[in-house]
Amino acid sequence: MLSMLPNAEPRVSDIFIEGDRILAVDPDVPPFGSREATQVVDARGCLVMPGLINAHTHTPMTLTRSTADDAGFPRPGDAPTFPPGKDWRGRLTAEDHYWSSRLAIAEMIRGGTTTFVDMYHDMDRVAQAVADTGIRAALGSEIVTFRNDAREWLPYDERTARRTFEACGQFAADWNGKGDGRITALVAPHETATCHEPWLSRCARLAGEMNLGITIHVAESAWEVGVCQDRYGLTPVQTLERTGILEHRVLGAHSLILTDHDIEILAGARYSAVACLGCYLKLAMGVTPVPRLLRAGVNVALGTDGAATNNNLNMWDEIHLNATLHGFLAQDPTMIPGDSALRMATVGGARALGLEKELGVIAPGWKADLIVLDLGRAHLAPREGALIGNLTYSANGSEVRDVLVDGRAIMLDQRMVAFDETEVLREAEAIVRRRRASVGLPHQYRRP
Amino acid sequence: MLSMLPNAEPRVSDIFIEGDRILAVDPDVPPFGSREATQVVDARGCLVMPGLINAHTHTPMTLTRSTADDAGFPRPGDAPTFPPGKDWRGRLTAEDHYWSSRLAIAEMIRGGTTTFVDMYHDMDRVAQAVADTGIRAALGSEIVTFRNDAREWLPYDERTARRTFEACGQFAADWNGKGDGRITALVAPHETATCHEPWLSRCARLAGEMNLGITIHVAESAWEVGVCQDRYGLTPVQTLERTGILEHRVLGAHSLILTDHDIEILAGARYSAVACLGCYLKLAMGVTPVPRLLRAGVNVALGTDGAATNNNLNMWDEIHLNATLHGFLAQDPTMIPGDSALRMATVGGARALGLEKELGVIAPGWKADLIVLDLGRAHLAPREGALIGNLTYSANGSEVRDVLVDGRAIMLDQRMVAFDETEVLREAEAIVRRRRASVGLPHQYRRP
Repeated sequence: MLSMLPNAEPRVSDIFIEGDRILAVDPDVPPFGSREATQVVDARGCLVMPGLINAHTHTPMTLTRSTADDAGFPRPGDAPTFPPGKDWRGRLTAEDHYWSSRLAIAEMIRGGTTTFVDMYHDMDRVAQAVADTGIRAALGSEIVTFRNDAREWLPYDERTARRTFEACGQFAADWNGKGDGRITALVAPHETATCHEPWLSRCARLAGEMNLGITIHVAESAWEVGVCQDRYGLTPVQTLERTGILEHRVLGAHSLILTDHDIEILAGARYSAVACLGCYLKLAMGVTPVPRLLRAGVNVALGTDGAATNNNLNMWDEIHLNATLHGFLAQDPTMIPGDSALRMATVGGARALGLEKELGVIAPGWKADLIVLDLGRAHLAPREGALIGNLTYSANGSEVRDVLVDGRAIMLDQRMVAFDETEVLREAEAIVRRRRASVGLPHQYRRP
Repeated sequence: MLSMLPNAEPRVSDIFIEGDRILAVDPDVPPFGSREATQVVDARGCLVMPGLINAHTHTPMTLTRSTADDAGFPRPGDAPTFPPGKDWRGRLTAEDHYWSSRLAIAEMIRGGTTTFVDMYHDMDRVAQAVADTGIRAALGSEIVTFRNDAREWLPYDERTARRTFEACGQFAADWNGKGDGRITALVAPHETATCHEPWLSRCARLAGEMNLGITIHVAESAWEVGVCQDRYGLTPVQTLERTGILEHRVLGAHSLILTDHDIEILAGARYSAVACLGCYLKLAMGVTPVPRLLRAGVNVALGTDGAATNNNLNMWDEIHLNATLHGFLAQDPTMIPGDSALRMATVGGARALGLEKELGVIAPGWKADLIVLDLGRAHLAPREGALIGNLTYSANGSEVRDVLVDGRAIMLDQRMVAFDETEVLREAEAIVRRRRASVGLPHQYRRP
């Protein structure tokens, strides 16, 4: 069994787990007294590594995967994706979002993701899905200050603002530390332009009062930058600074359009940029300036964004893209060495969550959130002198054999053991069929 | 069972195969007289689609996967990748290349590739691997006109030129139509700058005499463009035109740096550009101008290039990148609709090989080169109204369940039935270990 230790080449070793934590990692650990292992995962021919951390996604959107393709980042005035009256996506219920989140979790577990960060509405249903499946997550109920059904963007709506702000606090009160401690609550203002002052300041205060981190979309479009400029005379990052958001731990999803001064500000804060490159390619957006951020000492984590815009939740795609796209754009192939992309997907995510002493590393005392990769696959061969490159540029998630979270097996031998995956797939398909039928869209792929 | 027909939405149907060809496709085909099926592949809950065509790769390089990462397109004067005396890659023998090709074929079959195009040396060993495994391929023995071991590039070497030219003709004479007709020979000049005149003209004549297509690297670097300018006062494409290459069917690998006039020339020829985007991202190269080529009516096929520069042979990566990267670079997300990327990987490749009446389509009379995708995967759900998007943006090859070539099962239920995959993996690893040992590199990942 190979295991990937922090900042080290993989080596052959045994890993001992007690409860939810790693007890010892060593090739020559003596038996621990008279205790016998209650369960052994035989990982010969495999690599054990820390579970991946998907630091930005929206699991309730998974049911809308591939329904709005070949379109860009939404802008006011865009033509609607569906013909009038046919957009079934607005008809998804809280219960539908539960199954959407379950589906996302099944996909993430299969791809080796053991922790995810989510912000959306109906987050109590997402938290329930986390509790029911055994995965780990940091979750925030989104705070928006405009009406969701508005045709034009951003008519400020005090009622929506107050309702979503209170829902965020309530969610945190209800769920922080639940799911046997696997659920961490976050404060989740939607974005600098879509969460107006004074609500951003209130979010900062809420984070302080409840001792929570903050997740927020940051500087993801020229439109947002323009709104901040108009409204506050500031960049999005300066807006975060002035409202007190940056006094807390922040996961800044996207962080695309940043001035040098913005990056200086972020380097002085407990800020992590979350790059979601698959989404930027698909929507033809900008790109998180990962090399500039790393040079300035800003932590970078990786995320997939939601399945509506990616359209997968596969962190190996993100690792691969982060190891290649930045160098491609700068015409410098040496820019992001492969092992740093792997690190962003593990220790980078852990640090973003303030869990760098818990997750992302295989060492005594750290959480036993581990994935076992079957190295006996053609696309990962040969491995002599090539393992890190194979993981970075060729792995695609299909080689993830076993997944443990908190020391508990979620998937073994590619069979989901912690929950019924077939039920999830069946429910997901049935929901979409029902919602499509409710707007008069036919059931496809039926034998004529 | 769903099947993807040419230019049509998938539909539920049965597919009847006789020998190496599709006999009928219809939901309501009556029994064919008293004949009973000798084998039934139950594909309920699956999608059947034409096998993918990897139109440019170098399978003998697979053993060197991930050995030269974080480096760019090689240029004269680059620092060596390995310390002096430690580059074991030059020690690979013809027999090693046989196993390298076998490894590549295993990876390609698992990912749903049923035909590949290869140009390298030791091509008789590649052809043997094709014959032994049941995959389909178009192969050319590379013609180069400089010494391979030269420190500086391009010292013209008449002896190497003649030897490789003759080897190409001999390979074609020996192997064209072999492997039960699955092997097609190609003439394979390396590139306009690395295959000097008059050899390009001789290649054109050879293609005419033997009625073969041509595969060649075209306009892949500024360096090549400069050499053509200096040497001939022409662009690479004009060089192909003047030497008569463009009078034949040509697979132009990469086709990166093209003037509008070049594209006009190509549109008038039987030319297919082969885009290998995974490689361009990794090596920070340019990008095949796929939208311009398609607008001009030039056929586009997709390839992975070799595992030394990608580092995988996964055509789903290429489909995904082709559906996203061009729009991203042009800031127009609508540029390449998802279904056209799927088409480039199937009918585009078939047309590139002049096999558009044989491959890439599920219809009576076409070859039974089919892949069966298990749609019961979380990352492909839900599928109502979303199937093409799911394939384009989320499939990664792990869902390929069965692979048929010429009507013969190569993989069933993700088990390789046409050859022993374990033997391939074992040999590949052992070869690299031996070659590394021969230059004094240690065996990694051994328990201390």
